[in-house]
Amino acid sequence: MKIKLDDLEDFARGAAFLGTGGGGDPYIGKLLARHAITEFGDPIILDPEDLADDALVFCIAMLGAPTVLVEKAANGDDIDLAIKKLADRLGRMPDALIPIEIGGINSTIPLVAAARTGIPLVNADGMGRAFPEIQMVTFNVYGHGPTPLSVVDEHLNSVVVDATDAKTAEDLVRSVAIQMGLSVMTANYPITGKVVKDYGVKYTLTLALEIGRAIAKGRRDGKPVEALISYLKSTEYYQDCGVLFDGKVVDLKRTTEGGFSVGHCHVEPLTGKGARMEITFQNEHLIAHVDGKAVAMVPDLICVIDRETAEPIPVEALRYGQRIKVVGASVPPIMRTPEAIATFGPRAFGLEQDYVPIRELLKS
Amino acid sequence: MKIKLDDLEDFARGAAFLGTGGGGDPYIGKLLARHAITEFGDPIILDPEDLADDALVFCIAMLGAPTVLVEKAANGDDIDLAIKKLADRLGRMPDALIPIEIGGINSTIPLVAAARTGIPLVNADGMGRAFPEIQMVTFNVYGHGPTPLSVVDEHLNSVVVDATDAKTAEDLVRSVAIQMGLSVMTANYPITGKVVKDYGVKYTLTLALEIGRAIAKGRRDGKPVEALISYLKSTEYYQDCGVLFDGKVVDLKRTTEGGFSVGHCHVEPLTGKGARMEITFQNEHLIAHVDGKAVAMVPDLICVIDRETAEPIPVEALRYGQRIKVVGASVPPIMRTPEAIATFGPRAFGLEQDYVPIRELLKS
Repeated sequence: MKIKLDDLEDFARGAAFLGTGGGGDPYIGKLLARHAITEFGDPIILDPEDLADDALVFCIAMLGAPTVLVEKAANGDDIDLAIKKLADRLGRMPDALIPIEIGGINSTIPLVAAARTGIPLVNADGMGRAFPEIQMVTFNVYGHGPTPLSVVDEHLNSVVVDATDAKTAEDLVRSVAIQMGLSVMTANYPITGKVVKDYGVKYTLTLALEIGRAIAKGRRDGKPVEALISYLKSTEYYQDCGVLFDGKVVDLKRTTEGGFSVGHCHVEPLTGKGARMEITFQNEHLIAHVDGKAVAMVPDLICVIDRETAEPIPVEALRYGQRIKVVGASVPPIMRTPEAIATFGPRAFGLEQDYVPIRELLKS
Repeated sequence: MKIKLDDLEDFARGAAFLGTGGGGDPYIGKLLARHAITEFGDPIILDPEDLADDALVFCIAMLGAPTVLVEKAANGDDIDLAIKKLADRLGRMPDALIPIEIGGINSTIPLVAAARTGIPLVNADGMGRAFPEIQMVTFNVYGHGPTPLSVVDEHLNSVVVDATDAKTAEDLVRSVAIQMGLSVMTANYPITGKVVKDYGVKYTLTLALEIGRAIAKGRRDGKPVEALISYLKSTEYYQDCGVLFDGKVVDLKRTTEGGFSVGHCHVEPLTGKGARMEITFQNEHLIAHVDGKAVAMVPDLICVIDRETAEPIPVEALRYGQRIKVVGASVPPIMRTPEAIATFGPRAFGLEQDYVPIRELLKS
């Protein structure tokens, strides 16, 4: 596949949807990608099956609270330095880059990195969505940890971390990111081509682009939400899906704590009558309840969209009175195994809830 | 010079004195050094004038709050790894090691490192005492910064930092140290032999040993405090000195904040009558007032000792009711230049006080 200048609008929109509220504002990412592609040319996108087993692949991402990511932007030199610092640590440059997540700004930052450096970008990622913590990645679920990794701030201060386990890496990186101002660039998960092929969530760049295109086409036809749902149902990953709620935002609590945007959002029907939905988030939406009953939960997708245009609304853009629809959708099977649920299921976020797949919840 | 097993007791006592209340408990450092020297043999101590101009020298130190350093101890592997991580970053092993400070545990940790690795240890340091922050080093005062540097915890998690300035390095290292549990090993200030010769505080290993010996000899003669003062007056660095106060601890506030032990200690005369002394500390003693008038301040030494035995008492060992003497002493000229005072004078610690040398204060 290719992602060209004209695709960035749709790609960023699809990535915002898959960001499930988090991952930072993809429109800043889109501007950065536009600038990089204009200056350096199209990024090379690589099919994961075309990776050599022994290829060296790095994830490249921004890390911080999305509320801060809105205000700061990568300058490009920080991206180059993050890759170089990890390459120096390992003694070689990577053969390919891969997004750590296919949500929000971290789906477009790798496009910027690939365009700037000429290093191919793999059409896959490590989450099939966005998650807030660096251990919540399929590569880690299946035994391939995030370190060594590099962290670089906008002043080009840098830190290289080697940690004995992924949660320790997350804790260290988070404390560094907080010190650096909660918006840093990181190159991490140095993995082989074989690991990408075995444990990556594949073709998610294509999926993000197609989701964005489906919404755009739906708008031209006057039915963007229906077009979105229809496209999701046609995919292998997100096929168990539906509109979980239709209403307006009536309560919103959002604070930045411990390096995350945390809080909840209450939605009530437009009529003001009937059950409310409560959505709890930590950067990303974690769980949605209606009248105290869970209707969707991590790792399944909980996405807030504008009820008329189907435009994805990130957590930091939620506003009192917004008229929204809440869409739920399944994630790929590789993200629903017991190991995966242990890493990014409800209890991994401190929720007192066993994982129930959205497929089952949609039936009831 | 040599530091042998039989010297460790005196050396640790002298280093505790020069620690001016901070630098961690030197007796833990002594135990570690005893263990390392017994297992690996005597460390090689190098005269700073014997360093080649282009020799590569690392500081090696523990970093954290002394209250925590008491409870945790280096296991040795963390020392080796801190050196290796910085060496890997620079592409070569150091030709020599040097203490960052000659106070508390950080005067004995380099002995451990030198014994374990066989790398010579320079008879000099970067503070001529102890200070709480990593930018408060003569090398940095004169333009040679602390990074790249490595930080390693007891589980052998590691971080390598490159910072654009020394204060940013301190802030990053402190946040990492807090996350790692406030007791970490760090190799830092990769400098040349020429920098050590030009800006190091020289022969401070010898001075620590001789201070400890003077106190020990004084005890045998029944006059340890007098012997200590007499020896200090004979030195080039610490010659402006005296007993600033004699009394007992009547108030003590000590908390761990922002990765430091901070607080104050009030001392009143044994009779209970007359002016009190107040000592303010941040790991190390920063300033001593009597009746609101400053009688000694950083970078000059403010040292609390047992009034009978002259045993140095670190901040974490201060207790209500202790009978103490407070000794003040000058620091070397290289630590009293305007640049030096800007880096570790009173205002560098947030005190509303211009530096007045103890030489002048002792006159009044």
